[in-house]
Amino acid sequence: MASFSIISPAFSTRKAVVKVTRKFYTFCNLLIVLNALAFGLLTDISIADRIGPELESFCDLSILIFIVELMIRLSLEKGRFFTGRNRYWNWFDTIIVVLSSAAQLGTFSSFRVFRIFRVFRQLNILRVVRSADKLKLIVEAIFNAIPGMLWTTILFVIIMYTYALLGSTFFGNEFPDWFGNVWRSMYSLFQIMTLESWSMGIARPVMDIYPAAWVYFVTYVLIASYVILNIVVALVVSSLQEVTAKNEAKKSQMLSRDALREEMEKLQRQIDVVNDMLKNSK
Amino acid sequence: MASFSIISPAFSTRKAVVKVTRKFYTFCNLLIVLNALAFGLLTDISIADRIGPELESFCDLSILIFIVELMIRLSLEKGRFFTGRNRYWNWFDTIIVVLSSAAQLGTFSSFRVFRIFRVFRQLNILRVVRSADKLKLIVEAIFNAIPGMLWTTILFVIIMYTYALLGSTFFGNEFPDWFGNVWRSMYSLFQIMTLESWSMGIARPVMDIYPAAWVYFVTYVLIASYVILNIVVALVVSSLQEVTAKNEAKKSQMLSRDALREEMEKLQRQIDVVNDMLKNSK
Amino acid sequence: MASFSIISPAFSTRKAVVKVTRKFYTFCNLLIVLNALAFGLLTDISIADRIGPELESFCDLSILIFIVELMIRLSLEKGRFFTGRNRYWNWFDTIIVVLSSAAQLGTFSSFRVFRIFRVFRQLNILRVVRSADKLKLIVEAIFNAIPGMLWTTILFVIIMYTYALLGSTFFGNEFPDWFGNVWRSMYSLFQIMTLESWSMGIARPVMDIYPAAWVYFVTYVLIASYVILNIVVALVVSSLQEVTAKNEAKKSQMLSRDALREEMEKLQRQIDVVNDMLKNSK
Amino acid sequence: MASFSIISPAFSTRKAVVKVTRKFYTFCNLLIVLNALAFGLLTDISIADRIGPELESFCDLSILIFIVELMIRLSLEKGRFFTGRNRYWNWFDTIIVVLSSAAQLGTFSSFRVFRIFRVFRQLNILRVVRSADKLKLIVEAIFNAIPGMLWTTILFVIIMYTYALLGSTFFGNEFPDWFGNVWRSMYSLFQIMTLESWSMGIARPVMDIYPAAWVYFVTYVLIASYVILNIVVALVVSSLQEVTAKNEAKKSQMLSRDALREEMEKLQRQIDVVNDMLKNSK
Repeated sequence: MASFSIISPAFSTRKAVVKVTRKFYTFCNLLIVLNALAFGLLTDISIADRIGPELESFCDLSILIFIVELMIRLSLEKGRFFTGRNRYWNWFDTIIVVLSSAAQLGTFSSFRVFRIFRVFRQLNILRVVRSADKLKLIVEAIFNAIPGMLWTTILFVIIMYTYALLGSTFFGNEFPDWFGNVWRSMYSLFQIMTLESWSMGIARPVMDIYPAAWVYFVTYVLIASYVILNIVVALVVSSLQEVTAKNEAKKSQMLSRDALREEMEKLQRQIDVVNDMLKNSK
Repeated sequence: MASFSIISPAFSTRKAVVKVTRKFYTFCNLLIVLNALAFGLLTDISIADRIGPELESFCDLSILIFIVELMIRLSLEKGRFFTGRNRYWNWFDTIIVVLSSAAQLGTFSSFRVFRIFRVFRQLNILRVVRSADKLKLIVEAIFNAIPGMLWTTILFVIIMYTYALLGSTFFGNEFPDWFGNVWRSMYSLFQIMTLESWSMGIARPVMDIYPAAWVYFVTYVLIASYVILNIVVALVVSSLQEVTAKNEAKKSQMLSRDALREEMEKLQRQIDVVNDMLKNSK
Repeated sequence: MASFSIISPAFSTRKAVVKVTRKFYTFCNLLIVLNALAFGLLTDISIADRIGPELESFCDLSILIFIVELMIRLSLEKGRFFTGRNRYWNWFDTIIVVLSSAAQLGTFSSFRVFRIFRVFRQLNILRVVRSADKLKLIVEAIFNAIPGMLWTTILFVIIMYTYALLGSTFFGNEFPDWFGNVWRSMYSLFQIMTLESWSMGIARPVMDIYPAAWVYFVTYVLIASYVILNIVVALVVSSLQEVTAKNEAKKSQMLSRDALREEMEKLQRQIDVVNDMLKNSK
Repeated sequence: MASFSIISPAFSTRKAVVKVTRKFYTFCNLLIVLNALAFGLLTDISIADRIGPELESFCDLSILIFIVELMIRLSLEKGRFFTGRNRYWNWFDTIIVVLSSAAQLGTFSSFRVFRIFRVFRQLNILRVVRSADKLKLIVEAIFNAIPGMLWTTILFVIIMYTYALLGSTFFGNEFPDWFGNVWRSMYSLFQIMTLESWSMGIARPVMDIYPAAWVYFVTYVLIASYVILNIVVALVVSSLQEVTAKNEAKKSQMLSRDALREEMEKLQRQIDVVNDMLKNSK
């Protein structure tokens, strides 16, 4: 806020402010991408050895600019910033920037606790999503699709949990790594759901000791695949319906206007026809 | 039944009974979820060592409540309980509760046979599906979709069995674990169908001894993937058709009503027009 | 043919022949399924040791019945058998039965060549598909869908072959098992297409020697997945179009009939209205 | 160009030129396929030992013919060759042929640099796509579908990059091969996205050291699968919409013509009816 009150008097008209801030936002987005690349380069030891300190100070500087950007946005939008239409995105931005700043403190300070936060600086890249409208739309579309899958997911978690309980009871003693307790079983069942090494890696070793274990694994694989299949089908169908409904709404709107105009023309023609005939019949 | 006759006289009106039983059902569902969590915690040795007996006695108590709940429902619905619209779900509930009770006996008694049943107590969690209407709908939708896949599944089982017979004949001697007999071949082919380790794990070792085995595995993978693909496509198409048919039915119903009203208005207008003209022509 | 001329005089009317042959076909289908199960049981050594010879003689007998069945069908349908609407299915049946008979000779004779044919007896199970109308429809639907995928498949084979040539050139010397020659590369690329052990099994070992190999594998995985994705989408879309087109055709047929009737009624009503008004205006 | 000026005077009419060049093109396509097969055979040492030199000289000769073909096409289409409707395909052809020629020089010359280019000769097979119209359409359809996936892909790359940064920070020290730097992490995450050995191969070893790593892997697998799922759904929906839009456009065109004709007939009939009635009322 303070930083804006310093900048503010420098601009006389509203338009110039909008223009400059827009350019500043674009510059910030570029900075975010460059920051992300810098973090990437810093993970490469051969590069970090040569230009590591330069990259680090570049990142230090960017954090300051991000804080300035957030304050400008805050002072421009004021109340709407945390309650308006974009509040979720603003909250997201604020949290990331605050965490980044805390992480930066971690770089400077010698407190271990702060140093752990350093990793959050890297989440800045996610803010790029906010600035690209297309990406924002996709993220929102994806979040909108989640409720439609919610109950199927709950159903599947219930089934998974039942299998996890059974798995821990049956195979827990012999295979503590995979089915030692219900959480390990859940992880193993998640892996089996993705079909990764489910047979060669897990089912066959278990079947060597419990020959009837194939019932457990085969039924689980069938149920998991089938439920996933149904989620996919449901998603396709609901997306199609949504799209069709929108088209229908647009079409029916156009149709009703067309129908009215057509009806009027028809009546006009009928009047003309009957008028003509009445004249002729006189 | 006995338990209900004890509770019954305590309530005077039907409404109060409904209200109280509804609250009791909600309480039972909560108890089921807590029970499931308790079973999960019991699989974790570090937790079971500390509060194992407490959790066990909590589960013992819940079983009694579940039996009471079932009896209340049975005495309220009477004949409809086993023959009405919800009979499959009621049967399902009854079987789970009976098995749970038997399992509980297993916990108390020293008979080994009963102890094995303990595992069925964990299936109680599946009863939660019954109480959530949304979940019930999804389960029913999934069961409804099965007949459409039935024949494709039969076709695929026939193809799988043929491959299993060929596999046992060709590779049975050298690879008894994978193709020793037709059932082992079936399991291996199920694994190959999920594409898990089909090549590195099974096909390549087999091909080291029988170089021409790639024909067997590649054709099977192609057929299996293609059949599954067709099941997915069929499911999507049939779901879409169903949804479209429902919409059409609703629309045509609305349309016919709209058309009638519109027709009447049109006739009225025509009458008016002709009337006017006849008046004018007089 | 000979066998039928022996049976033929025994039945006087056409209807009785149809009825009996239908029952005979059903019996043959049952026999095919039992045969398949017998072959399955024969692969299990513990069962084969006990009742192996009995199962073998049961299969020997069934083959004779299958030959009789084919001859009856041949003599009933005559010319149409090999040229009619079901010719592909009839050819398929004939080939399987002939191969089974040759295989049976192999069981009796001591010639090694014939013994190899024994495996074809097991293909009899595939004939069950022919008898179940639903299965026949599914198989025909699947075969109908192939042309739509033909060109995409050709495109993909060309891409795969290009990658196989490149793979053999680049990695052939160091990894003869996977990329030794173009055919081995093709098999490896088929495996990679199914995403089985593509990275841990193949790409990472190759990348240890050729660090730039990730370009080869990642681009191939992306292209292969994308092409497969497009085949799936194309299949879904074309199936939906087909179904929609059929519905449209049916609806437009009904609509045109409805429209005609409606038009006639409307005219009738208009005549009535004008008639009434003319009467009134008199 | 030179080669064409030699051939050109030999033909008097335009038609003959077209006919001959078309045959020449077909011959070239056949040659491309044969070339590809020759390259394939050359990778097989047992075959290369016997007829290697013959195959090599066949490939040498074909390259010359391909250069001639390209020059003929260039001199026929002139300016349009690099700027017309097929410019992308022509550029593609030219690049491949030029690279092949350079590669051929590599076969002759002893310069090591040129020898490396030999591999590009094998890309000639991709030119077959250009000549088959169906394949061309499919490739163009696939390229057309890419923009629709572009933003989802960008979103996913951002998420992947964030996970890669986190992965390098968290696991980089202990697992340099998988998460040593951000590029290795990216490759590992690409592998995990395809679900290949993600758990047994990578996640479980990492979890042995960092027990909380399951959060990283499970969330990534869920996000990756979900994003891919959404791309598939979007592709299906957009393809369907496109197809439906085309059908609608065609239908509405036909409808408007039909509606006009029908309207005219209706008016004619109404005139007839009223005329008749007026005659009768006289």
